[in-house]
Amino acid sequence: MARDGLDAIVAMSIDNVTYTLGVTVPSQKLIRERRVVVLVPKEGAPAVVCVTVEQGFLQANIDDDQIEIRPYDEHTETAMQVLSRLVAERGLGGGRLGLELDFMPAQDYEELRERLPCAQFQDIAPLYRQLRMVKTPREVERVRQASSIAEQAIQAAFDQASAGMTERELGMLITQEFLSRGGDEMRLLIVGAGERSSYPNAPPTNRVLQPGDIVKIDLLGTHDGYFSDCARTAVVGEPAAEHARLYQRIVEIYEKILEQIRPGVSTRTLYAMYDRAAQSQGLQPLRFLGHGLGLSVHEAPFIDAHTDVALTPGMVMAIEPVHYVPHDVGLHVEDQLVITETGHEIFTHFMDTTRIYPIRD
Amino acid sequence: MARDGLDAIVAMSIDNVTYTLGVTVPSQKLIRERRVVVLVPKEGAPAVVCVTVEQGFLQANIDDDQIEIRPYDEHTETAMQVLSRLVAERGLGGGRLGLELDFMPAQDYEELRERLPCAQFQDIAPLYRQLRMVKTPREVERVRQASSIAEQAIQAAFDQASAGMTERELGMLITQEFLSRGGDEMRLLIVGAGERSSYPNAPPTNRVLQPGDIVKIDLLGTHDGYFSDCARTAVVGEPAAEHARLYQRIVEIYEKILEQIRPGVSTRTLYAMYDRAAQSQGLQPLRFLGHGLGLSVHEAPFIDAHTDVALTPGMVMAIEPVHYVPHDVGLHVEDQLVITETGHEIFTHFMDTTRIYPIRD
Repeated sequence: MARDGLDAIVAMSIDNVTYTLGVTVPSQKLIRERRVVVLVPKEGAPAVVCVTVEQGFLQANIDDDQIEIRPYDEHTETAMQVLSRLVAERGLGGGRLGLELDFMPAQDYEELRERLPCAQFQDIAPLYRQLRMVKTPREVERVRQASSIAEQAIQAAFDQASAGMTERELGMLITQEFLSRGGDEMRLLIVGAGERSSYPNAPPTNRVLQPGDIVKIDLLGTHDGYFSDCARTAVVGEPAAEHARLYQRIVEIYEKILEQIRPGVSTRTLYAMYDRAAQSQGLQPLRFLGHGLGLSVHEAPFIDAHTDVALTPGMVMAIEPVHYVPHDVGLHVEDQLVITETGHEIFTHFMDTTRIYPIRD
Repeated sequence: MARDGLDAIVAMSIDNVTYTLGVTVPSQKLIRERRVVVLVPKEGAPAVVCVTVEQGFLQANIDDDQIEIRPYDEHTETAMQVLSRLVAERGLGGGRLGLELDFMPAQDYEELRERLPCAQFQDIAPLYRQLRMVKTPREVERVRQASSIAEQAIQAAFDQASAGMTERELGMLITQEFLSRGGDEMRLLIVGAGERSSYPNAPPTNRVLQPGDIVKIDLLGTHDGYFSDCARTAVVGEPAAEHARLYQRIVEIYEKILEQIRPGVSTRTLYAMYDRAAQSQGLQPLRFLGHGLGLSVHEAPFIDAHTDVALTPGMVMAIEPVHYVPHDVGLHVEDQLVITETGHEIFTHFMDTTRIYPIRD
């Protein structure tokens, strides 16, 4: 804050609220009208503004007694009304406030500017992205758990699956295995069989698994607030020769990429290497090789052609070499790992991903 | 649009995008950086702006060939860049555009104003709220399904539960029952035992169910994109006399309220009746009795002291008479219903809610 000349920061997105406060108000992810706002002044205790209905939950779940809880009545007040009052009380009405302008609704921003005519505002979304790139050991541990549970759930479900089952039934199996292993919430589950494997983020349908179908899973679930983003590719029975051949190329490229994943390497250099190899091998990759993950699914740094960030110990990444042909097929391997002092450590190492995983036909 | 003098509307929130387009881009709910924007001009075909990664999914899932899909490269472009280009191409650069200012990020709003200096902007959040209040028969059917599945899942789980189980284990049972009955996604599951029943939106923990515990469930899941919001209260073994007495009062008040739920009645009148009865009976209600629901959990109209809307056939409502004492206990009944020509029809009528539901001790 000192470096950026800020007198206070204001978090409003669910991920930055959780990062700042250490607690998530569960209903925030569904009811967008119910704002949760965390004010962290340069000096003095933080405060959180939430709807009256959530006051008791926050009282019971915030460890730090110093943090002030300021409820607002959603039927007669706005969060910005309560926030601006709080800012004024703290003597910050003429100060410089950092806001998440990539999330904060335009209406709230306009209201806050009207209510605090002497304050100055600055976008702190980039600051949060920067702060959150390198994880604490506790954060690393949580993604490790989430990822490990996710991968084991996928494997357990594949081992129980067979031709004749629907995508939905397979999805149910994965969900059960994920929850029973200690996963907290299934936030997005992607199950695509056959041509549906070609849509990177498609939910399960009643499509029936048939012999020869590629079956692509991507499991985005949480453990203690932190995300898994683990993808695996299976086949019902024997893969088509072309699918096996393309998958083998992904595996070969991936092995070479993994050798390069260590501190100091630039994300852009990594992507260039991946993109070159993928193109030369006839693969059709997405426009990125991976991304950070933590309290949200996509975090800095991205591994793409336009991001130049040196990998640093403590960064937690999802690496996803893929081959996607729209309306035809998707082959997808996605692991989670942490950058260590000497290289990296993969969290998702239970399944054999050197071949397309077999499902009984 | 004509009435409001608009030349086009722009939807950006996941619920209004789905309402307008008829399709949800699943990753939108998790990855807030990936904007989905629907442009509906007064004349000509609608268009949708999405990241390149989701283009194939939208092509496969949008029925209307007339709708143009405009992908943007999330690594080099912004959604507002592509949207403003599209607006200009359609000859709307000097027109009046409706925006969702209660959702649209401040940054996007500023960027769009810069890129379209001759356009005028107007908040259309109130218009969407108005439009979505009365559901189509197809929408009613989807909430009916979601709600009915949710209630049956809760009952089935209660019937399998017993003392010694954790909140998490009970939550897993509910999730399994919900998915196996045709629910699509468990979006928020609230499980609170004992003093944890007093937090309206608390997720399940490892707390063990003990004899005498009140167990409160609230299941917010979707079927075909539409929400359930069904709450039920159980007790492990025999309820404390005080809990049984308070619950009985909720039931009595609720019965009288239900008699009034029919077309033409004002939400404010209903709330006043409820609030008066609850206060006189020593209950501690929340500040509302209910709300609309559909593609999102909380929709207009609210049944509270400040909303004066006449109930209308086709409105789908969640009605939730409750008693909440923070850090002590929560007693909660929540049904979903549709307003009919002559009264209402309750979707959640399988369980006997005239007493606290018994769980084996």
